[in-house]
Amino acid sequence: MTTDPHAVTAAILVIGDEILSGRTKDKNIGSIADYLTAVGIDLREVRIVPDEAPMIVEAVNALRARYTYLFTTGGIGPTHDDITADCVAEAFGVGIDVDPRARAMLLERIKPEDLNAARLRMARIPDGADLIPNPISKAPGFRIGNVFVMAGVPAIMQAMLDEIGPTLRTGARVISETIEVGNIPEGAYASDLASIAGAHPGVSIGSYPSMTQGGFLNRIVVRGKDAAAVAAARAEIAALVARLRA
Amino acid sequence: MTTDPHAVTAAILVIGDEILSGRTKDKNIGSIADYLTAVGIDLREVRIVPDEAPMIVEAVNALRARYTYLFTTGGIGPTHDDITADCVAEAFGVGIDVDPRARAMLLERIKPEDLNAARLRMARIPDGADLIPNPISKAPGFRIGNVFVMAGVPAIMQAMLDEIGPTLRTGARVISETIEVGNIPEGAYASDLASIAGAHPGVSIGSYPSMTQGGFLNRIVVRGKDAAAVAAARAEIAALVARLRA
Repeated sequence: MTTDPHAVTAAILVIGDEILSGRTKDKNIGSIADYLTAVGIDLREVRIVPDEAPMIVEAVNALRARYTYLFTTGGIGPTHDDITADCVAEAFGVGIDVDPRARAMLLERIKPEDLNAARLRMARIPDGADLIPNPISKAPGFRIGNVFVMAGVPAIMQAMLDEIGPTLRTGARVISETIEVGNIPEGAYASDLASIAGAHPGVSIGSYPSMTQGGFLNRIVVRGKDAAAVAAARAEIAALVARLRA
Repeated sequence: MTTDPHAVTAAILVIGDEILSGRTKDKNIGSIADYLTAVGIDLREVRIVPDEAPMIVEAVNALRARYTYLFTTGGIGPTHDDITADCVAEAFGVGIDVDPRARAMLLERIKPEDLNAARLRMARIPDGADLIPNPISKAPGFRIGNVFVMAGVPAIMQAMLDEIGPTLRTGARVISETIEVGNIPEGAYASDLASIAGAHPGVSIGSYPSMTQGGFLNRIVVRGKDAAAVAAARAEIAALVARLRA
């Protein structure tokens, strides 16, 4: 799938010390991954970096150059440790200032007399960016080039993703078929599965063990964008599993 | 904390298409993060990459050069999509072959007549690596240089982490103090908090909003390795919050 020149690709950049310290367990990577897969965008890479400008700028520039889209989460609040907008402006080499459109959005929720300097930080938007509305707490995200800058709070991130979803170029949806293997050990089918994978280069085939109270439980997943190719590989794997069960 | 030349730092590399597709939700990042924080190792970066050799090799080399330790998870099973060991060997420029010690470990669980070519893949270890025992399913992980290669199944990863923990050089533990702010909005304290942060450069201060049924709930976290410095910043923040509540 990676060699498809028409593939729409993406990366996620999670920004925040609190994820790296373990204090907060990230929930955004999994939900963005589900979303992108559902619309046919290949998530190719994820990075998590601390609230430090050099690392954020480097990651933004590395990832936006390499993929169709980059989605960032975190660091767009009013406090001193929220530096994502400034870092994205630096990565693009553009200015950043209070954006009147963003200021107006904040005023939908905040009284004018309460719009202090800290809150106005949430209206600082890099020059040339489009805003991403935030239906929950109003402080917007933004899009600049192929980079979408979203909040870290999962409910707000999800609302922003719903806002930008319709604007994304999407690819052919990946069809995914799961073959339940039960407790047949991976080692008993790995060689045959490798042969099937070799004979079906148009699909990707993975074997995923998980542990349950009763021991290992294995699943084989076939993924691809061509329904016939996925079905053909799936049929061969199902036959293999049936032979092993017999 | 990042400028401390004695700091022990780490990165995590999660390897697997199933995480990027959203099919499997990663649980290892959070538990490794907790573990490292508890022993005074600063987790500085995380990457998630697909089961593709060029991306794995590039990430291994980028991260092992930059941090004290690199921990990888995933891709060490018997199936064709498990390519982590070969990629790590390639990253280090060393050979890889079936390791007699690893083969012996597999034979603790697998009958000799069942030790087929696929299962023997789990005994392929880069030249010069030390093994990481796997008390659950026997197939070992390994350490080469500053890179620890672990399984992706969370229970096995955890068991391997427990095995290697005592061998790690650890740093000063980070002390973390949380000040509950309740529903006082971040924008009401952000400026004062920035002043406190500026006056306490030896600690890191973060403000973390979360959403509950009743609206936002904010917490301020002070982190640092010097107990007195953390306590001093904590006291100023507690006084600030008390003033805002009054």
